Amino acid sequence: MAATYQNHRAQIEAILIGWGMLPETAEQTAEVIAWADLHGIDSHGLSTMTMYHERWKKGRINMQAQPRIVRETPVSVLIDGDAGLGHSTSILAMETAISKAKSIGMAISSVRNSAHFGACGFYTEMAAAENLIGLVSSTTSIVQVAPAGGKEAQLGTDPISFSAPGIEGQPFLLDMATTTAAFGKVRNKFNEGLPTPPGWLVTKDGLPSRDPSEVVEKGGSLTPLGGSPEGSDHKGYGLAVMANILCACLSGSTLITSPMHMKQPYGQDISHFFMVIDPGLFRDIEDFRADVASLSETLRATTPMDPSKPVMIAGDPERHKAKERMEKGIPVGKGLLEKIRAIVQEDEIPWLLE
Amino acid sequence: MAATYQNHRAQIEAILIGWGMLPETAEQTAEVIAWADLHGIDSHGLSTMTMYHERWKKGRINMQAQPRIVRETPVSVLIDGDAGLGHSTSILAMETAISKAKSIGMAISSVRNSAHFGACGFYTEMAAAENLIGLVSSTTSIVQVAPAGGKEAQLGTDPISFSAPGIEGQPFLLDMATTTAAFGKVRNKFNEGLPTPPGWLVTKDGLPSRDPSEVVEKGGSLTPLGGSPEGSDHKGYGLAVMANILCACLSGSTLITSPMHMKQPYGQDISHFFMVIDPGLFRDIEDFRADVASLSETLRATTPMDPSKPVMIAGDPERHKAKERMEKGIPVGKGLLEKIRAIVQEDEIPWLLE
Repeated sequence: MAATYQNHRAQIEAILIGWGMLPETAEQTAEVIAWADLHGIDSHGLSTMTMYHERWKKGRINMQAQPRIVRETPVSVLIDGDAGLGHSTSILAMETAISKAKSIGMAISSVRNSAHFGACGFYTEMAAAENLIGLVSSTTSIVQVAPAGGKEAQLGTDPISFSAPGIEGQPFLLDMATTTAAFGKVRNKFNEGLPTPPGWLVTKDGLPSRDPSEVVEKGGSLTPLGGSPEGSDHKGYGLAVMANILCACLSGSTLITSPMHMKQPYGQDISHFFMVIDPGLFRDIEDFRADVASLSETLRATTPMDPSKPVMIAGDPERHKAKERMEKGIPVGKGLLEKIRAIVQEDEIPWLLE
Repeated sequence: MAATYQNHRAQIEAILIGWGMLPETAEQTAEVIAWADLHGIDSHGLSTMTMYHERWKKGRINMQAQPRIVRETPVSVLIDGDAGLGHSTSILAMETAISKAKSIGMAISSVRNSAHFGACGFYTEMAAAENLIGLVSSTTSIVQVAPAGGKEAQLGTDPISFSAPGIEGQPFLLDMATTTAAFGKVRNKFNEGLPTPPGWLVTKDGLPSRDPSEVVEKGGSLTPLGGSPEGSDHKGYGLAVMANILCACLSGSTLITSPMHMKQPYGQDISHFFMVIDPGLFRDIEDFRADVASLSETLRATTPMDPSKPVMIAGDPERHKAKERMEKGIPVGKGLLEKIRAIVQEDEIPWLLE
């Protein structure tokens, strides 16, 4: 079954309102979550609501959160997320960075005391839509990535997103976990009883494995991008540490390696980093966009390995999916649909998905 | 044979002076090149002098280059490298970004009309030494990386470096090409007659191969970090495009995908990006450093897969090498030594390496 984008988004908003979220916060949060589903990033869409539901019931999300600016300069702002979900706090953070970058040329919003904020790409796209460059990162709650050369997981999937305006409506938009594969992909292989490709995971003893149950059930870890020493996993590992420095160390949030990680009395103390740069600092914005567009078009024109799969630039796959889903609706798997229905029934929320 | 660091550096400086480089420029350039050798980054050290020698003889390097600031704001500067080698221009760029970041909190120096600048890590380390975060990238001259899913090479190895101050004298210092493996590693396998590990390269038809001659002799390409579609090579590809946007598109330099790339009448029009962030924008610098130090120490304490190989943080391998080479001297392979001797004899320069 596939509800329209409008109904899909309205369902998410209705649930958030049902949980007692402030109306404006719920509207923004639903926008970010539905954006992920629309763009095919299902791991960060409706499926996250089951996780939020559990955390809300345990009293670990402040639905009345009022994020506030705790420190400010012409180029920067430090925001406390007030233990709420990260989405609407992150819109405030990105809007603030955009506004400051328009005034002085570049700016950073650093966010602490936040939680899961959905897909990074939503926020970098905000910058691109304003003819600006965006760079966004976040820490994570789940410790599931071993450092290169190490046995135990110490890090998260620590995403990085970068956007730049080029062709109208088609910004370059990179949004990547710093792991070889997302946990969701490993779980899917596990559910299908299939082996994972080489390099996706290691056992709890740090040995390479192709058995997804090692990660799903037996305490193994995801690998940093690169997948193995010979594949240069020290690079993915390095990028993950960079993300933790830009997010947690800069904002003063709990380190993922701290004994206090996930043991905060209230909230999760997840941290985010939002940076915006105005290319107009260096040249005319239209010249900059023309070069990004030229680079994009030349890359797309590369002879593909498989003639049925044209070379793309970052952002293309998600745009294609969004166009398709805006027309045909957003499909929701049967298992997830039943979980959402149960939440709606339990919390006495209107049902809008069918 | 292994000359002392001092003699090694003096030899490089003497050659540059012999080529007619301005004395202050030669001193700085030799410092950057010798830094790479000292830290074990041999691909960016003395070995680059043979490449520079060829370019100089072809009249493609302006040894009298006087880099100049062509545009400036409180947070930014655009520098024209005057078709010289990139090293001393890049020191000026990083010093300028550091100075502005100390004043306002963050800054970017964008450089155009430059050339090879050595190892990125030299410049990010400059930021860390001043208690600042550094982010540096560069475009490259050689087109040798195929986009994910593509047959032909379109991009360079497009490096990214990031540093942050933590433990005294031990900053986190990531310096990575956005490819799976550097070209030098492929060439070494070729020279030894050994196969490359899976995922390092593709043939000129875009097919995975473990035969290094495919890249060295037959027009094949290096892979973006990730190495294959299943290894998420779209991520390394995306990072390479990000580097090109930050360097070439921002500074208005020739795109690597342009027909004019490497066909400039004079110089190479390589571009660089230098960004500096003051953590003091968000919190006390000592608290920031303590968190980076804690993160670093916890990661180093991870149980290693191989008990003889402790887990490291980015920057550790190079620091160990620098300590060793400062004590024992910098080894230079016989082949390279003969090439340098020939240059010295040809250009009537003093010989200092023995």
